[in-house]
Amino acid sequence: MHISLPSMIRRKRDGGRLESEEIRELIGAYTAAKVPDYQMAAMLMAVLFRGLDEEELSVWTDAMLHSGRVMSHAGVPEIKVDKHSTGGVGDKISLCLAPAVAALGVPVPMVSGRGLGHTGGTLDKLESIPGFEVNLAADRACRMLEECGLFLIGQTEDLAPADRKLYALRDVTGTVESIPLIASSIMSKKLAEGIDALVLDVKVGDGAFMRDLKQARTLAKTLIGIGEASGKSVVALITDMTAPIGLTVGNALEVREAIDVMRGGGPPDTVELTRELGARMLLLGAVVDDLDAGKEAIDRVLRDGSALELFSRVIELQGGDPDVCADPEKLPAASNRETIVARRQGYVARINPRVVAAAALEVGAGRKVKEDDVDPATGIELAVRPGDPVTAGQPLAVLHHNDSGDTEALKTLETAFEITDAPPKPASLIRDRI
Amino acid sequence: MHISLPSMIRRKRDGGRLESEEIRELIGAYTAAKVPDYQMAAMLMAVLFRGLDEEELSVWTDAMLHSGRVMSHAGVPEIKVDKHSTGGVGDKISLCLAPAVAALGVPVPMVSGRGLGHTGGTLDKLESIPGFEVNLAADRACRMLEECGLFLIGQTEDLAPADRKLYALRDVTGTVESIPLIASSIMSKKLAEGIDALVLDVKVGDGAFMRDLKQARTLAKTLIGIGEASGKSVVALITDMTAPIGLTVGNALEVREAIDVMRGGGPPDTVELTRELGARMLLLGAVVDDLDAGKEAIDRVLRDGSALELFSRVIELQGGDPDVCADPEKLPAASNRETIVARRQGYVARINPRVVAAAALEVGAGRKVKEDDVDPATGIELAVRPGDPVTAGQPLAVLHHNDSGDTEALKTLETAFEITDAPPKPASLIRDRI
Repeated sequence: MHISLPSMIRRKRDGGRLESEEIRELIGAYTAAKVPDYQMAAMLMAVLFRGLDEEELSVWTDAMLHSGRVMSHAGVPEIKVDKHSTGGVGDKISLCLAPAVAALGVPVPMVSGRGLGHTGGTLDKLESIPGFEVNLAADRACRMLEECGLFLIGQTEDLAPADRKLYALRDVTGTVESIPLIASSIMSKKLAEGIDALVLDVKVGDGAFMRDLKQARTLAKTLIGIGEASGKSVVALITDMTAPIGLTVGNALEVREAIDVMRGGGPPDTVELTRELGARMLLLGAVVDDLDAGKEAIDRVLRDGSALELFSRVIELQGGDPDVCADPEKLPAASNRETIVARRQGYVARINPRVVAAAALEVGAGRKVKEDDVDPATGIELAVRPGDPVTAGQPLAVLHHNDSGDTEALKTLETAFEITDAPPKPASLIRDRI
Repeated sequence: MHISLPSMIRRKRDGGRLESEEIRELIGAYTAAKVPDYQMAAMLMAVLFRGLDEEELSVWTDAMLHSGRVMSHAGVPEIKVDKHSTGGVGDKISLCLAPAVAALGVPVPMVSGRGLGHTGGTLDKLESIPGFEVNLAADRACRMLEECGLFLIGQTEDLAPADRKLYALRDVTGTVESIPLIASSIMSKKLAEGIDALVLDVKVGDGAFMRDLKQARTLAKTLIGIGEASGKSVVALITDMTAPIGLTVGNALEVREAIDVMRGGGPPDTVELTRELGARMLLLGAVVDDLDAGKEAIDRVLRDGSALELFSRVIELQGGDPDVCADPEKLPAASNRETIVARRQGYVARINPRVVAAAALEVGAGRKVKEDDVDPATGIELAVRPGDPVTAGQPLAVLHHNDSGDTEALKTLETAFEITDAPPKPASLIRDRI
């Protein structure tokens, strides 16, 4: 170690800059366990208060990226594009989006995460498919990309290990909510996939980490800045997270909804998000000339079965049961279903995504702490969407659970719905494009 | 642990309050090694940015105080008063002040610290007296207070252990420079001595931790607030630290100056600080009716030998050679003395205390890092004070060192002096009284 850590921490604390070499040495030494957690914790809190400027952040992210293996896909000459969502409730878009885009000739090397707290994780959803293996070694994932243009895996040990260590530390030291730290965590993992371009879905609203549009825009611009500094093309959509996406929250339930979308059906907002994000991925992948052509192409592969066919192949290659695509009844199902109904006539003004997520957590569909197991079968199926008119007694949602005695989740779920006399102002799904 | 640490850290980080019970549990669990350093480091950085309000700080300090033994002096009915200085260069005041005050019937239970960086420490100075033992068990120190009204010891293992752990952590995590953390560290140790009242000497200027008067006043008021919340009488002087105190910097050299003061001599500023601080201790100890009577009493015991007699007794009781009082030549002396002289005629405009301290560090009189040993004999003897007129070639200072080949310290020392044509504006020693 050539750097003096206490003096580096003090400098950042007092609003000063960190030199590029210092940052590289700090991240490298931390990954190698040569910097103790307590010094990194103090540095992270100082960064939370003082931020990182564009150059500091770019070097910080690059040092995290190069703390481990950076995948390269020499055998895949096409432009490789991924999508990243900052996390919401009922966000199963990756499941139908990635096969659709890959089916159109744009390779998608997708490394996803698990759910925690109110947000779900793509890996948990995939694991609800019997046999599906998300822990693939990087080499095998690379071969899959060559064979079928897609892999859907979890972060391997050797991808951005600095991020895994830093994230675990941030989680227990109150240093999660920092835009540069969030941005470097996201981008170091995404850049390690070996992508050429990235579409970001930055969620905004009560169900997202970013509660207001200004924060969401700052995060989006920060992510784009890091991507550009690494020579990657990055675009962002800022999308609404004031209600769950689609009609399902819970792992197998969401896979089923994604399969519905790939059969040409599914709820309109799930389909719209898939089209909007997919069109941008196709444009970055240079297989279409404009967004409209991209949306049409996505529509086509969702309707003609080619997205579902590719999804089925990926399931098979990753050890899962591909029959779930033709027969979603093969997905795990909960033993109990209880319906909640509207107590009065009116309009669905609001379906609070955090409350729906809390009910899903209570029936085991998510994790309160990282160590929790997830029940793949449980969750919530919505029967209405915000703006829908309802009559008294009309079903609002079905709770899928495996614990017949428990009524807490049901009580929680009921409080998620707000019914008013007048119809609510319709919310726009796409809030901004950056 | 009933508290959720990440949520406590986030609350403080976002400017919220910590509950009293939470603070007590945090400090207690940290002392018992049940809270990891990394979470405490993040909390300390959050406290550095957000501060602690009066109630939080009072509870925080009280929890640190009660993390270990609180001395009680049931056998000493008099009002027990101590002095604390926030640390400067050449600050040997405790050595002559404590015996003078104790000789006047006010018991002084004094627990001191070691020097680090540019500041000296009373313990290092005492240890330059051959045989002097600063590591006394609390019980033995209590008996000394009964026998002679004074002990001069170091922080024992069981006094405020939370402070020792927290200070070590702050030192390596860039969280030293926080007024509430500084104040709680000072007051938890001082309150653990079993005092009834305290006089604070808050140093201000280039040679102090507090560079400006506003900061120094804030620290003084914070310390007084904590003391009052514990039912103790606390007063503060804010005193000048733009030049070293007196004419010596270095351990044995400073003991010799303190002995000079207790023989009725010594440099005027060393004597004045002793009188001002001593008079306030006597007033708090209720043995004089006003400050003037206090100053006269201090003058008397410095001139009539009773302060020195008591110092000699304390040295003897703590295993040291009391003959140094009558014969300071028995103190360790450096083998080399080199004089630096004025290059031009004029007035001494400035003697930079940090530069003098740096020269003293270079000849081994202080510690660069905590693990360093201190050379008791080395240091600097000033031949002039700010404001003195000098002629070219007139001695400015003598460097006492044990490394004949080393000229770095001499070069450093030369740069401490600034000589100008016009006499400087005289600085007032006492900058404020709170």
